[in-house]
Amino acid sequence: MEQPGEIKKVSMAVIKRLPKYYKCLGNLLKNNVERVSSQDLSKILGFTASQIRQDLNNFGEFGQQGYGYNVLQLYTEISKILGLNTLHKMVLVGAGNLGQALANYSEFRTHGFDIIAIFDTNPNLIGRKINNTPIYSVEDMEYFINENDVDIAILTVPKDKTEKVVEVLSKTCIRGIWNFTPAEITTDDDTDDIIVENVHLIDSLFTLSYRINEDKLQERLLKQKRKIFPDCR
Amino acid sequence: MEQPGEIKKVSMAVIKRLPKYYKCLGNLLKNNVERVSSQDLSKILGFTASQIRQDLNNFGEFGQQGYGYNVLQLYTEISKILGLNTLHKMVLVGAGNLGQALANYSEFRTHGFDIIAIFDTNPNLIGRKINNTPIYSVEDMEYFINENDVDIAILTVPKDKTEKVVEVLSKTCIRGIWNFTPAEITTDDDTDDIIVENVHLIDSLFTLSYRINEDKLQERLLKQKRKIFPDCR
Repeated sequence: MEQPGEIKKVSMAVIKRLPKYYKCLGNLLKNNVERVSSQDLSKILGFTASQIRQDLNNFGEFGQQGYGYNVLQLYTEISKILGLNTLHKMVLVGAGNLGQALANYSEFRTHGFDIIAIFDTNPNLIGRKINNTPIYSVEDMEYFINENDVDIAILTVPKDKTEKVVEVLSKTCIRGIWNFTPAEITTDDDTDDIIVENVHLIDSLFTLSYRINEDKLQERLLKQKRKIFPDCR
Repeated sequence: MEQPGEIKKVSMAVIKRLPKYYKCLGNLLKNNVERVSSQDLSKILGFTASQIRQDLNNFGEFGQQGYGYNVLQLYTEISKILGLNTLHKMVLVGAGNLGQALANYSEFRTHGFDIIAIFDTNPNLIGRKINNTPIYSVEDMEYFINENDVDIAILTVPKDKTEKVVEVLSKTCIRGIWNFTPAEITTDDDTDDIIVENVHLIDSLFTLSYRINEDKLQERLLKQKRKIFPDCR
């Protein structure tokens, strides 16, 4: 049983649903919706109303029986919970195609995530700018991050360069690594205060492949079952 | 209670864990590990052993009490479950930076996902190649997809072009859309047999931001609790 002096660790599954609540409430606000019940949210989001109430209860008492949630209040609270009420300074390491795509992505800045510098080893890129953000030599990275209190490093370097870059980052004040490389970054003593969020694109493709394949799979499983229970249809 | 003639629909949470099992078993195979217990898998993956057994039970009886799982057999089965035992033909729509990054990503082909054509509206790009894959005019897309039995379309077009592209795709034999645009694709009568997998990069960034912010958040929640229960420390 949870004691009043303790706060339960919030599960990763709940954390992953927070951005969906945030976006949904943002849309409701845009449409001038002032209050919303967990049942309404359930219809929009596809999670059960009870799940939604449980999720939000992790962070305080927001709703009111018979009234529902105040949309603006809940939106503002979730924005704070996600740390979106402060500006996050980011650097991008690796100015290849993916790095350039991310540097040009305007949605980050809209939500307070600002890429203030890009680092690369290619002398043809150093000194140039992408979307007004300067590209510097990776040799200046450690100094720059510490001087400018950078929060987050976006990693878009080739797989075999990842370890070296993480080694440098572990000497800085960086608090989070957003890892787009196929390399799995494991934190050791040097880096265990750095949070790593891995974007494994291939996992998402595998999920799509599963879902395309699901009907055939169900048929196959059913056939296997029929062998075991020959009477069933 | 599940009947022998029925197959329970597998939850999205389980589906999202399958790629992790697949990769983990692939690594074990590379290291010549022949069998593995759910406890061993638990240590590597961070899910509980009971969760792992439950997940895998959705797809048949793989393990054996006291022996564990045969690594090669389980790897092969999960590969089939994910549809990785067949070649998937893909097209990429939108040859901007992100499209180019994905077209150059070699891991897809390794797993049987082959980008066979790229489509764009930019006359300067049409006729050129990225990573040996030709860029065609988007006007030829519908014909090309149907002629070549393409499975999956990767969407890397600007947000405001998404709807139009989806409209065209809905007239083709495409079975899955891997959506990298910020637009939310909702399926209607025309498209409800197309599976959409949305890659919302900003959600992943929000999750990272939450995790960086978590300690401060816990302190704030604890303070709120102390107001309600002033005796607790």
